Amino acid sequence: MAFQSQLDRLDVVLISPRNPLNIGAAARAMANFGFTQLAVVAPYEPHWREARSAVGAPELLAKARQTAMFAEAVSDSTLVIGTATLTRRKPEQPVVQLPDLAPIVRHELARDGRVALVFGSEKRGLTAEDLAHCHLLVEIPTDPRQPSMNLGQAVAVCLYEIASRVGQPLAIGTSTLPLDQASTPKDLRANLRSPGGDPPATTSELDRLARIVEETMLAANYSPAAMRKANRHDLHLLLRRLALTRPDARRILGLFRRILWRLHHCDGQAKD
Amino acid sequence: MAFQSQLDRLDVVLISPRNPLNIGAAARAMANFGFTQLAVVAPYEPHWREARSAVGAPELLAKARQTAMFAEAVSDSTLVIGTATLTRRKPEQPVVQLPDLAPIVRHELARDGRVALVFGSEKRGLTAEDLAHCHLLVEIPTDPRQPSMNLGQAVAVCLYEIASRVGQPLAIGTSTLPLDQASTPKDLRANLRSPGGDPPATTSELDRLARIVEETMLAANYSPAAMRKANRHDLHLLLRRLALTRPDARRILGLFRRILWRLHHCDGQAKD
Repeated sequence: MAFQSQLDRLDVVLISPRNPLNIGAAARAMANFGFTQLAVVAPYEPHWREARSAVGAPELLAKARQTAMFAEAVSDSTLVIGTATLTRRKPEQPVVQLPDLAPIVRHELARDGRVALVFGSEKRGLTAEDLAHCHLLVEIPTDPRQPSMNLGQAVAVCLYEIASRVGQPLAIGTSTLPLDQASTPKDLRANLRSPGGDPPATTSELDRLARIVEETMLAANYSPAAMRKANRHDLHLLLRRLALTRPDARRILGLFRRILWRLHHCDGQAKD
Repeated sequence: MAFQSQLDRLDVVLISPRNPLNIGAAARAMANFGFTQLAVVAPYEPHWREARSAVGAPELLAKARQTAMFAEAVSDSTLVIGTATLTRRKPEQPVVQLPDLAPIVRHELARDGRVALVFGSEKRGLTAEDLAHCHLLVEIPTDPRQPSMNLGQAVAVCLYEIASRVGQPLAIGTSTLPLDQASTPKDLRANLRSPGGDPPATTSELDRLARIVEETMLAANYSPAAMRKANRHDLHLLLRRLALTRPDARRILGLFRRILWRLHHCDGQAKD
């Protein structure tokens, strides 16, 4: 079941969902489209696992992960995709429309990556802080007059799009047509990116790298304290945009460790 | 508004829905994807128009048609499409998979037809009697192990598919790509990489960056002299693979300049 094992490497991540019925609806849609991995970050209601709306998906709900922090939920992810309907603020990441998402997800799963599809809370969607963890945003093409979708419906629409256009069709019926198997105009994310077939860096590796770069910035007195938060935000976005492989991340980490060591050993001896 | 008038000729028909929340959810999804015409056949609950789940769609719900019989609801339709998840019984009509539906709907609307998209009740789906009114069945490609979808989610998935692949895209935003243009790897690559429209770094900028990183490696005593040439080679490859924008390159250059300055000012004072 090579295809199933690919679907098992896609995590649906719900951030601070308020209504357990929506969590159950998300679980039900996951089961409908063959996905199995749910993570719930800081849910509002502690008894969310009992949601009656999870028709056909009680096991999926029972073994869902619960984490306190978003970063924890995506620590193993190599591609973190934030979802939005109509993008109000100017996004800092690349944005793709949902109908164009499947090849990107397919490519990442095919090269043994792990994809997180992230949904913000019912009220606020994804915050700027949440977005800093995302490599990419996907926009569901809704009517500008009524862009805000129900959470359970948004999950269903996204998973339908990915399941029905990633790899083989799930449903096998007499009338089932093979969907868009080879060809693909757009093996974009890594055709270009990972020539040696190296695995992509995980979120936790990127975060480790971000920490040491930030530490180096401090040690080198790179920017005033007032800029620290903005720099950290920019650094997160930059690291995600670069689509580093694991060897890339390790090499850069090694370089910065060395730099940091030198900087610490001359601390106070350099004059600004 | 030729396109809107086409969407206004698609009726969503719900047959004997039991839960008003599902009717409201269907209305919400219709508003999300630009559809306006709802018909409810023999609803179980008389006060369905008050469903609180119809977020952003109270008017749509208020002017929805209510009929006693299915035939009445589709009396003006030129193409009646029944929806199902996994077809258990041998269908008497042609069956298309949802990902293949849009061209059929588009064709019918373009020739001034009127399309009905019909959903059965939560418990039973469409009965044999209902099916007799349908020209065509559409199957949502669900996992055979859990084919049964929530009604509101099924409506959302079907309308998303039709809206996002019939005619023009609905969403118009600064970042929205025309859907049928993102078809070449080049386009996708450009769209993915440079959200703010920043120009890519030039070769000379990359080379400048490479030189300063290399100088920093030396200053930090990063690697033995024998490795220098191999490191330079890897660094060149890496910088090209990252597809940095010009602002990226400048920012990284600034950081390394600062690091280098610090390293030079403590030269000879750090002990290895």
